[in-house]
Amino acid sequence: MSPPNSSALNRRPAVVLVSGGLDSATVLAIAVREGYDCAALSFDYGQRHHHELAAARKISASLGVTRHVVVSLDLRQFGGSALTSDLHVPKDRNEQTMSAEIPVTYVPARNTVFLSVALGWAEVLNCFDIFIGVNAIDYSGYPDCRPEFIEQFERLANVATRAGVEGHGTFHIHTPLAQLKKAEIIAKGLELGVDYALTHSCYDPNNAGQPCGRCDSCRLRRAGFAALGQVDPLKYPEAT
Amino acid sequence: MSPPNSSALNRRPAVVLVSGGLDSATVLAIAVREGYDCAALSFDYGQRHHHELAAARKISASLGVTRHVVVSLDLRQFGGSALTSDLHVPKDRNEQTMSAEIPVTYVPARNTVFLSVALGWAEVLNCFDIFIGVNAIDYSGYPDCRPEFIEQFERLANVATRAGVEGHGTFHIHTPLAQLKKAEIIAKGLELGVDYALTHSCYDPNNAGQPCGRCDSCRLRRAGFAALGQVDPLKYPEAT
Repeated sequence: MSPPNSSALNRRPAVVLVSGGLDSATVLAIAVREGYDCAALSFDYGQRHHHELAAARKISASLGVTRHVVVSLDLRQFGGSALTSDLHVPKDRNEQTMSAEIPVTYVPARNTVFLSVALGWAEVLNCFDIFIGVNAIDYSGYPDCRPEFIEQFERLANVATRAGVEGHGTFHIHTPLAQLKKAEIIAKGLELGVDYALTHSCYDPNNAGQPCGRCDSCRLRRAGFAALGQVDPLKYPEAT
Repeated sequence: MSPPNSSALNRRPAVVLVSGGLDSATVLAIAVREGYDCAALSFDYGQRHHHELAAARKISASLGVTRHVVVSLDLRQFGGSALTSDLHVPKDRNEQTMSAEIPVTYVPARNTVFLSVALGWAEVLNCFDIFIGVNAIDYSGYPDCRPEFIEQFERLANVATRAGVEGHGTFHIHTPLAQLKKAEIIAKGLELGVDYALTHSCYDPNNAGQPCGRCDSCRLRRAGFAALGQVDPLKYPEAT
């Protein structure tokens, strides 16, 4: 997919958080389609799988986004999450369980940290638009995916920065997926030409990067494709 | 100085941002004196001088704080500040100039990023108290040192986290220096036994770590000691 405007000079800049997963790939495609000159930001935060970062690179390139920065930030020093330490990733949870409790895959303050770094880069780029693929419908119950979190971060951004204080513009945190079901997200991405074969969603892949098929993230993704009657291009272990 | 309570078990935990400078050294001493079991957090964020981190280690140790984590976060990739890139550090600015404009030593969204990471660690430690040495009186004009920034961050912390959402406690961002003049900060620290010879304030030290004496940070520090009639234990170049 090529951007609608030919020159980056005419386009408004945006920083887009790109994890390598299905949601953020869709967000990047939306931002590109809306005409933004996108700068993609990923984090190497000590997650157990680097397959995510490889996916983030491929997705950015596939959408014509040439500026992609990976910031290293070792949150393993703190522990406290199955995604950054040796805690067990829960499997086969149903939707009721997912929405009732915050799982051990929660990384403390992750989106706060990610948005803060995005804010710093945005300020350097003289950019007031930040995109993040949070979703408050089909999600794992993380507190920093909720609309009240995003609204509060937006308020913070406008008092935290030189750009906000000096009145050069108003920061806006875009969450185009906030109120979409997983199937709707996938439908949107397919419409925009996202190649979901490039994305990585699993919390607990094997060494080759193959998804487990059974963690919250795999289950939500698979259910989304199934609800649409579409085939997930990723290959899952046969038993799942 | 030894903590007032002998056992860490009886004490409330706190995360304290310790840069290695005069202000945060004083904050750490205040938190220890208030009886907190302190965990010190520093950042290696690509600043031009690592003398700060060495100072942070020495200060923490001198105040009996055994938990000190240094998080690496390379903000140089973004540029935009004299503290993380090759921009020129301004010298010999007077107080009027300092308060009238935000200087190039401003690191975009720095305190937002630092507090976010502190929040993540606090959550892992089951801790609701975070200390930061921001000051809105004798300061360099950074937007993320102002009380309105701190208030918004505190609100954010309580919607961003599992601990805040599940009601385990309320996060509080402590800024004991917010309304103190530099001389008052130094007086407080001397009263608490802070060894200011261990601290590092300069934005532009030479390779041996000797302060320039002329950047905003050096000027504010020296004026503070002078106003108190105290001798700054740091050695400055004779010409300054």
